[in-house]
Amino acid sequence: MSDANSNSPHHVVIVGGGFAGLHAAKDLGRAPLKVTLVDKRNFHLFQPLLYQVATGSLSPGDIASPIRMVLSRNQNTQVLMAEATDIIPAERKLVLRDGELTYDTLIIATGVSHYYFGNDHWEPLAPGLKTLENALEIRKRIFAAFEQAEREADPQKRQALLTFIVVGAGPTGVELAGALAEIAYRILKDNFRSIDTAETQILLLEGMDRVLPPYTPDLSAKAETALNQLGVVVRTKTLVTNIAGEIVTVKSGDHTEQIAAKTILWAAGVKASPLGKLIGDRTGAELDRSGRVIVEPDLSVKDHPNIFVIGDLANFPHQGERPLPGVAPVAIQQGVYVAKLVQQRLKGKTLAKPFYYKDYGSLAVIGRNQAVVDLKFARFSGFPAWFAWIFAHILFIIEFDNKLLIMIQWAWRYFTAEGGARLITNPEEAKEKSTVQV
Amino acid sequence: MSDANSNSPHHVVIVGGGFAGLHAAKDLGRAPLKVTLVDKRNFHLFQPLLYQVATGSLSPGDIASPIRMVLSRNQNTQVLMAEATDIIPAERKLVLRDGELTYDTLIIATGVSHYYFGNDHWEPLAPGLKTLENALEIRKRIFAAFEQAEREADPQKRQALLTFIVVGAGPTGVELAGALAEIAYRILKDNFRSIDTAETQILLLEGMDRVLPPYTPDLSAKAETALNQLGVVVRTKTLVTNIAGEIVTVKSGDHTEQIAAKTILWAAGVKASPLGKLIGDRTGAELDRSGRVIVEPDLSVKDHPNIFVIGDLANFPHQGERPLPGVAPVAIQQGVYVAKLVQQRLKGKTLAKPFYYKDYGSLAVIGRNQAVVDLKFARFSGFPAWFAWIFAHILFIIEFDNKLLIMIQWAWRYFTAEGGARLITNPEEAKEKSTVQV
Repeated sequence: MSDANSNSPHHVVIVGGGFAGLHAAKDLGRAPLKVTLVDKRNFHLFQPLLYQVATGSLSPGDIASPIRMVLSRNQNTQVLMAEATDIIPAERKLVLRDGELTYDTLIIATGVSHYYFGNDHWEPLAPGLKTLENALEIRKRIFAAFEQAEREADPQKRQALLTFIVVGAGPTGVELAGALAEIAYRILKDNFRSIDTAETQILLLEGMDRVLPPYTPDLSAKAETALNQLGVVVRTKTLVTNIAGEIVTVKSGDHTEQIAAKTILWAAGVKASPLGKLIGDRTGAELDRSGRVIVEPDLSVKDHPNIFVIGDLANFPHQGERPLPGVAPVAIQQGVYVAKLVQQRLKGKTLAKPFYYKDYGSLAVIGRNQAVVDLKFARFSGFPAWFAWIFAHILFIIEFDNKLLIMIQWAWRYFTAEGGARLITNPEEAKEKSTVQV
Repeated sequence: MSDANSNSPHHVVIVGGGFAGLHAAKDLGRAPLKVTLVDKRNFHLFQPLLYQVATGSLSPGDIASPIRMVLSRNQNTQVLMAEATDIIPAERKLVLRDGELTYDTLIIATGVSHYYFGNDHWEPLAPGLKTLENALEIRKRIFAAFEQAEREADPQKRQALLTFIVVGAGPTGVELAGALAEIAYRILKDNFRSIDTAETQILLLEGMDRVLPPYTPDLSAKAETALNQLGVVVRTKTLVTNIAGEIVTVKSGDHTEQIAAKTILWAAGVKASPLGKLIGDRTGAELDRSGRVIVEPDLSVKDHPNIFVIGDLANFPHQGERPLPGVAPVAIQQGVYVAKLVQQRLKGKTLAKPFYYKDYGSLAVIGRNQAVVDLKFARFSGFPAWFAWIFAHILFIIEFDNKLLIMIQWAWRYFTAEGGARLITNPEEAKEKSTVQV
């Protein structure tokens, strides 16, 4: 790259302030170049804990941090709140909704959103969990359902209000179902007079033959046992074939069933952010079925060595049988790798090694005291796993200077058994946008 | 009241879960009667700290608590999330949007909202601060203005983006202006590259001749000095005569001026909630100019001894020259008084004494380390006053079991000088509902 010798410093433009983009930016913060990070939101979101906002244990401010605060000490870095709408590789230009940027190196890390397998009209009926707004909408639906049940005289309608369906038993679905069980069977126990929250039914549906399909079968079995103990009804090999109003149609083998449920949460299927298709159109890069960009071994886009795609938006097929999973550790390591690669190139060198993901293991939390951990060298579950989960998450909230504060909050809430943030906000909006009548 | 001798227990219906209604409910929790608390929201809001949510220091969950959790131990009490739409005193009926309740005693405590002195079209241009949604909207506008300024090339537009006008210098206005100064001159200092946040202008406008008009003149003077030291420009005897787009027209004496400001916040004027007029229509009770119900010395409505109006919605003219102010201590004491009165009546007795407000003093916080306190027996300002303010607020968050947790958070944020919750949420909504382009 010749820019290193020109007058103005090499300009790295990063689109997206999630785990991948933010870590790339952090690691470029002391390098002799100029960095611009573009995000349409002003904050980084610690997505692994988003379900705790959705279930009222944490507040939005606990798991989100302004990007420009996180990067404020990086004097070479500017943060722009803007939306990227196009890329013109020939001119090295990133087009924004209201402006444009010229880059020397472009790093795209805009992630994925939910996918309803072609049934986009299900979205308002069964919201997914990707943004803070999603989380607050889900929180509103969960607690509004109990409020309405308290006032509902008709037993059938009441049963539908007290039925919660979670579609998809990946980590997010398992965590949501576990948290719902805690809410219904423990936290809200003494809060109502007309209903008994113990009558709540929580169904976790999974198309594959076990929960947590990416994990080992024995951990899946342990997770299922823990879910059952909490009161969650797990149904594997079960597909959702229709959602209409408050009726979910499910199919297990040849058996089809209709279930009335007021609250349906979607934790199955992802599709690439719109920038994925744009990269395909503008560079000729190949996309996978979800619209993610299939990247080169060094995470660059084919024939465009100065354009990188990292994080959930990237399909990295060069390690193992399946592409790397869309999880935070992959995104972080990719951000770190690209930051290193860019700095090497500036020095006229290159990184000999392609990107390699070092997998430290997987973990998922099921409820208070219940989690499963697969650390490769050791697998365990129950309280030790739960504690490991807490520890790992505190440790990796590196974007936050208030690590200790969050730990204190968690300890507090653990010992007082309270969810402090069970607020239903924007109820008027709820009336318009959803079927919830508050 | 004869109901005490009938089969079903005496039924007290309380409308509104603010300070007044919640304290009435709490004090009736062990009495041999049935209590129903109706609120359209599912949470009690600690309103004195709402400005800290608006300025990004606290999260909604820190200052709000689900009403049914607060009252969960009161076995005689049911909480309903519902909206009251009418009262039929002859039938002792409270009409809800979807149902009705029969009461023996009715306690109305639905408070007040903003008043724009007949200029309701100013509301979207200059939001007030009464609800959590208001606070999040104001937070969004404040931080979006800085984001836009960072990207604005035109110096004039940039100046308008960095100009904040707070209308009204009561406690809320003073606290908002002080917090804005902290944000602009301290917290955001190193976060931007194109703008210098020190160029931010914060104007506090007040129609009367001093800030904090309900306080003593020397405390007003001290507060104004503290505001000036923080960088706030205070203009007293100044009225807003028009708000159009981003131009505020202000009038001081004969002098009229137009100020371009992107962010205008309204902290002047209140009007009664719609139930006030309804009570007037249905009972013949007299209302004041703001629509508040003028109550009897025992807080009941004239000629309706079993209907009470308490809190901000009540105009209590029987003590001092002016009606009692709409502050939390008045609301709390009124709730406690009515709860006692109702229990005495059930025993066939009555309370000899009319309601009497015991005024322990006033306080307002201006910024970190800066507050003014008027404790009647002692007046002070500066750090001791700030500390007293913190202490009093922690002490009075009696609705919250997480008192200690909030104290730890505050201490943390004080020593790290960080506002952790500066998130711009619902940006799409912002585009539609306001002039902010995010």
